[in-house]
Parts: sequence; C-alpha cells; structure tokens
Amino acid sequence: MTNSTHWTLAERAAKMNPSVIREILKVTEKPGIISFAGGLPSSKTFPVAEFEAACAKVLKDDPAGALQYAASEGYGPLRELVAAQLKAQSAAAGVTWNVDPAQVLITTGSQQGLDLVAKILIDKDSKVLVESPTYLGAVMAFTPMEPNVVSVASDAEGVDIADLRDKSKDARFLYVLPNFQNPTGRSMTEARRAALSAEAARSGLPLMEDNPYGDLWFDQAPPAPLTARNPEGGIYLGSFSKVLAPGLRMGFIVAPKAVYPKLLQAKQAADLHSPGFNQRLIFEVMQNGFLDRHVPTIRSLYKAQRDAMLEALAQHFPESDGPDSANADSTFTWNTPAGGMFLWARLPAGMNAVDLLPHAVDKGVAFVPGAPFYAGNADARAMRLSFVTPSVEEIHRGVAALAEAIHAQRS
Amino acid sequence: MTNSTHWTLAERAAKMNPSVIREILKVTEKPGIISFAGGLPSSKTFPVAEFEAACAKVLKDDPAGALQYAASEGYGPLRELVAAQLKAQSAAAGVTWNVDPAQVLITTGSQQGLDLVAKILIDKDSKVLVESPTYLGAVMAFTPMEPNVVSVASDAEGVDIADLRDKSKDARFLYVLPNFQNPTGRSMTEARRAALSAEAARSGLPLMEDNPYGDLWFDQAPPAPLTARNPEGGIYLGSFSKVLAPGLRMGFIVAPKAVYPKLLQAKQAADLHSPGFNQRLIFEVMQNGFLDRHVPTIRSLYKAQRDAMLEALAQHFPESDGPDSANADSTFTWNTPAGGMFLWARLPAGMNAVDLLPHAVDKGVAFVPGAPFYAGNADARAMRLSFVTPSVEEIHRGVAALAEAIHAQRS
Repeated sequence: MTNSTHWTLAERAAKMNPSVIREILKVTEKPGIISFAGGLPSSKTFPVAEFEAACAKVLKDDPAGALQYAASEGYGPLRELVAAQLKAQSAAAGVTWNVDPAQVLITTGSQQGLDLVAKILIDKDSKVLVESPTYLGAVMAFTPMEPNVVSVASDAEGVDIADLRDKSKDARFLYVLPNFQNPTGRSMTEARRAALSAEAARSGLPLMEDNPYGDLWFDQAPPAPLTARNPEGGIYLGSFSKVLAPGLRMGFIVAPKAVYPKLLQAKQAADLHSPGFNQRLIFEVMQNGFLDRHVPTIRSLYKAQRDAMLEALAQHFPESDGPDSANADSTFTWNTPAGGMFLWARLPAGMNAVDLLPHAVDKGVAFVPGAPFYAGNADARAMRLSFVTPSVEEIHRGVAALAEAIHAQRS
Repeated sequence: MTNSTHWTLAERAAKMNPSVIREILKVTEKPGIISFAGGLPSSKTFPVAEFEAACAKVLKDDPAGALQYAASEGYGPLRELVAAQLKAQSAAAGVTWNVDPAQVLITTGSQQGLDLVAKILIDKDSKVLVESPTYLGAVMAFTPMEPNVVSVASDAEGVDIADLRDKSKDARFLYVLPNFQNPTGRSMTEARRAALSAEAARSGLPLMEDNPYGDLWFDQAPPAPLTARNPEGGIYLGSFSKVLAPGLRMGFIVAPKAVYPKLLQAKQAADLHSPGFNQRLIFEVMQNGFLDRHVPTIRSLYKAQRDAMLEALAQHFPESDGPDSANADSTFTWNTPAGGMFLWARLPAGMNAVDLLPHAVDKGVAFVPGAPFYAGNADARAMRLSFVTPSVEEIHRGVAALAEAIHAQRS
C-alpha cells in the first residue's frame, strides 16, 4: 500500500518544542560527570519501606476499589488530607485558609495542573504573566494553548509590583512560584507577598500559585501562600513529588468555585482520573503525620548539601562579594537559597553560560544555563546549580571543576 | 480583602461540558439498582496477587528507578513488550506489522492518548470524523481543541465507505474503534477494514484507531488492526485497563515518525511522564506471558455474562426477531456482540430511551441511553447495556425489570 497520508499538524504544534533543558542535558550525559544540572530530588529521600507497606495494605484492604475506575476529583480521604494540611500550614504562618476538600482536585503530578489551568484559562494570544525568570515546564504547559507570555520584572524578593501594574491589564493570570523557585531558589518575602496580594485584588488579576518546593525550607517555614490570602482569587498547585516521590506522579490543585467545575471537566477529558492506586498509596503513607517526621530529614539533607555548595563556592571564588556587590560584574556570584533544590549563579560580565557549558563538561561538571528560563530578555550570564543530587564530596569536586572552567575561559 | 478577581475563561471552556453519561448515572445511584449502565470492567478480573508480587519486586529491585522522575516516552522494557505483543497479534491475524518500540509512547490511560492526539492534530474548527455512534470520551477529549466533529454513517459492519468518501476532504483524521465498540459492541468486518484502509490510503486520510477492547473476543480474535495495514497512515491507541486494571491508568500510543515527536512534546507538557512505578508494575505482571493465561479467563467470564443477557432478552422479548427484521420497529431489538463489554439495544418506534430511564430505575434497573454517543443526529431509541458488572442472576432480574418498564410504558 502506498503511503500518501496527509498529516496536517495543528498550528499549536509548530509552537511546541522539545525542552531546551532536555536537549542541553544530553550534552552532559557522560560517564563520571558531576551534575548540578538535574532537577531530580535525591532518591535517598524516598520512603521505600513505607511504600512497600502501603502497597500491601491497599491491595489487601480494598483491591477492587484501588484498581477500578474512580472519580475524576480524586480519592476522597486524600482530598481531605490535602485540605487539612494546607489549613494547618497556613494557620502556622498566621493566615486562616479554610480549604474545603471539595475544592481539591487530584492531578497526575502538578505538571498536569498547569496543563488543565492552561486549557480553561488561555485562548490563543491571551496575555499570561510570568516571573523573570520562571519555571520552564510551566511555559511548556501553557504553549499548546498559544498564549502571549509576558515577563514581569523580578528581583530577589519576588515580582516587581510596579512592573506588574503596568502589565496586568487584560492578563488572564500571573503565574508565580513563591517558594524556593525553580530556577533561582528565590523565595518571595512577606512584604512582597502582601503587596502582590493587594495589587492582584486591586486589579482583579487571578494568581496561579505553584508550590512544589514550599515544604523544603531549611531554617524557617515560608510566609503563608498567596492563595490563602484571597482564596477566591487564585489557583494553588501542589505536589507530592518532592516530599514523597515523583515516580508516582501525584499532585493537586486547589481552585475556587469560579473555575473548579471547568478544571474538573478538563481533568476528565485529559485522563479520566489520576491513578486511584497511587492516590491510596500516598494517603496510606501520609496519614498519621508521616510527613511531620519525614520531611525534616529531607530538609536537613538538602541544607547540608546547600551548605557544602556555598562553602565550596566561597573557597573557589574568594574574590566574590555576592550578587549585589560593587564587583558583581567582574566576579562569579551566587545567591543563598533558604530552601528547595537550586542555587542561582552568575558569570562575570562578558561571559555566557551556554558557551561555558561544554568547557565545564570537559572539566567534569554540568549545570543548566539560565537563559531558557526567561520568557523575555534572557540573562546570558545566569546558571542554575542543583545541590541535591551529588554527594558533599562531589559538590566540592564539581565546584572546583566549575571554577577551573570559568577561570580558563576568562584568561 | 474584597474579592474582585476577574476570571476570564477560555472560549473552549464554554464548549466543555460535564459528561452527559456521568450526569445520567447519578439518577441511577440508588441502593439495590441492577446496573447495565456502567462501563467498568469486572473487578473479579483484576490480578491482585500478581500486582502484590510486582509491587514487592519493583520496590526491592530498583526503588530509586521506580520512584524517580523518568523519560517521557515511557519505561523501555514496557515499550518493547507492547511492540512485541502488537507484532505477534498482527502476525496471528495474517498481517505483518513491524512495530518499533521507538514508536510506542506510554500514556496515562488511553484517554490521555486522545488528549495528546487532539492537541497536535486539531485546530479550531478542524474537521474531525467519527463513527455514528462513537465513544463519548473521545469527543470529550477532542472538544477542548474546538473541532468540527462530523459523523460518518455506520452500520453493523463499520463505517460507510461512500459516506466517508463524501466527507473526508480536509478532515484531520477519522476516529474509529473497530473492535467491540463502545457503545455498540460492534466489530468491523475484515471486508470493511480492507475497504476503509484502501479508502484512507486513496484520500490520504489519517486514521486514529482506538482499541481498548480488542483482546476481549469470545470465539475468535478480530481481524488485524487498521494501523497494521498502513503504519505510516495511522495512530493506534491501546490500553491495559481492560486486561489488567483501569486503576493504574496505563495505556499507550503507537505513532508514525510524522507525528511521534510532537506527541512526545505534548506528553511532556501534559504530565512529564506516566507514573514510572505503575509502568514497572504492568511490565512485571505482563512479562513471561501472563496475559496469555489471564485474558482467556476474562473472555470466558464476559462471554458467559453476554450469553446470560442474550438468553434473558430472548425470554422477556419473545416477539423480537432482531434488529434487521421486518418487525424491528414494533419490538425491542438488540445485537449480538462478539466480544467486549457492551450490547446495543433499540426500543420500539415511538419510544425514547432518555424518557424510559427513570421508569426503568423505578423498576430497579439502569442503562445508558444511546443519544449522547451521537455527534450528529441521535437515535433516541438506542440504549447501551453493559453485561460485565452484574452477576448472571442479576442480569436475569435486570432484564426482567427492563422488560417490565418497557411494556408498562408502551401500554
């Protein structure tokens, strides 16, 4: 049979591209490379024994329920647990957020939450606001709906409120990742959150708050979520990937009544429901306060790794006085994230992280250039360094190799 | 804080609706109701012990791999197993289909396959062809991309080739469910498949072949897939939901090189990847030919249930001479599906399945009216009867109640 099939791709397909980071990471896939490039949680933190016990229990107690088709909203007891946890966390941060389990939608990872929100809120050419830089996976999830993605200026404390005010007219929403952001590791201060929340309420701008890393704080819990301050004005996305395990693909959305029913319809059309078996596993492991015992062990592990990276950086770049110093243009600088998985660094003026990468790989270390994370004008000097996957010893060797590559390219 | 948030929904959101069937099923949720309405596989068929063993093995052998982020394409060994199985099944049906594992994309249920295909092939107002009637979940998955869904006339043997020829100009694809279709239980004959395949090749029309029920044949395996006849001209969607369990949400796409890379990008944006843990469970259970031993037990269970329904129908509607008989307009008629989960029945002329439903529920039995399954002109007399969930005894009582309701409404 001759093949004369006329495949006509949708216009949106032309706008979709392979993840730039994924392509970059291919360069770094060499044996022996110390990688600061990946965005993976440390597999040491996966509670394997607890999952084993949960599998046995779920399949013993109600195998038919766990293996059958289920409600698109998600497993009731898990939705209740999510609501209770968010309530407790907000209360601890001083804000009352009465999350109703009926507003919780379980998703196939929080990435799916981004896809569902994009489907119901973005028309072709709709203006969508993002931080600068922002999480690349969110932009990739929005792209099929063909938005006009506009960057709002951002600094170490969060989005710039004046720039937001200039740009928010007719925007469908602002996408923000306030806690230990991917890629920068930045956290939005309480003052900035209050200002952002007030400005959003003033202009009527919906907020889409993504919080995969919020539990991974090192010294103190972050301020209350933006959504807690105005639950009718925002959609909150959460994830179990960083506190339990990403391989189960479990996340959730908390959405107000204005949008929940449409998100639910989008969810049903997308995959009917997230795996009921996985939802029950997460519930079994989480109940009885497991996260209260488990998450502190992740925090101390990641904090020690961050400290090792800060120590190695200070040792190998002794001339650096920090990102806001007078000599920031002539030195390699970095920030000090208060949680999460990533540190944001910047090359001296005149250097370019994309150009540096192959030389760094030659020296035995990989990172992700910062440029792909910008929807608008990119900072070519920026780079993202993940400190959670390599060991402390590898962090020291990796930073040494990075310093060698940078110094070699400058001279 | 005042809530002045301006939520503007995307235009597509207005076109999305709750599943009509889901709404209908709410009517039927009464204690003691015998339901022919659900589309659920029998939970008796779930291989619980095998899943228990697989959970233990996967978490023992490679917990870090199973619980970590993974490739968007899916778990390599599972993709190889899928390719090998499709190759073997096609060969047994007399057609050589050299499925390359590189063309297999693991999806979060085959429902997600529909979502991904819609994203890359449907622009607003694109013409998309479907059978008449067709699987409602597919139309719901296409709807967010705002297609113009056009029904192609269909009979007991499959789509009408002449009508297809009239309508195929500029269509993005024809969606077909050739084996034991949901909702009709119909299977496309070999002659019709050959004719459809030839017509698609002639006009260059891409085929989107959905095959969730193909393994559930009662007396003989169905003819070879359409995609096997022209692999470059079609996308094939498969599922593990009916042969293992739906609660793990595992399905797959086989796609030609012309579209695979875009499907993969859409997949990555949608949920990064399907749960790696679940993929490994399916692989562990399936390897070493488990399905060759397990699926025959599902076939004989479902066949016995179908036989019970046919027997009960013949007993309670003795005047019926079948859907093609001279008295088909004055009697209740039904088809004889050769596999799958559903039987398609039709009320006498003048009756309406939607109107009948509450009366049937009063008598203690539920079904799904056929009308929602039509993208174009609906047959108001049609209804779908699932024979897999109730017991044989319940099937007999349910059909008796249905007959009572029909006779009461006619008189």
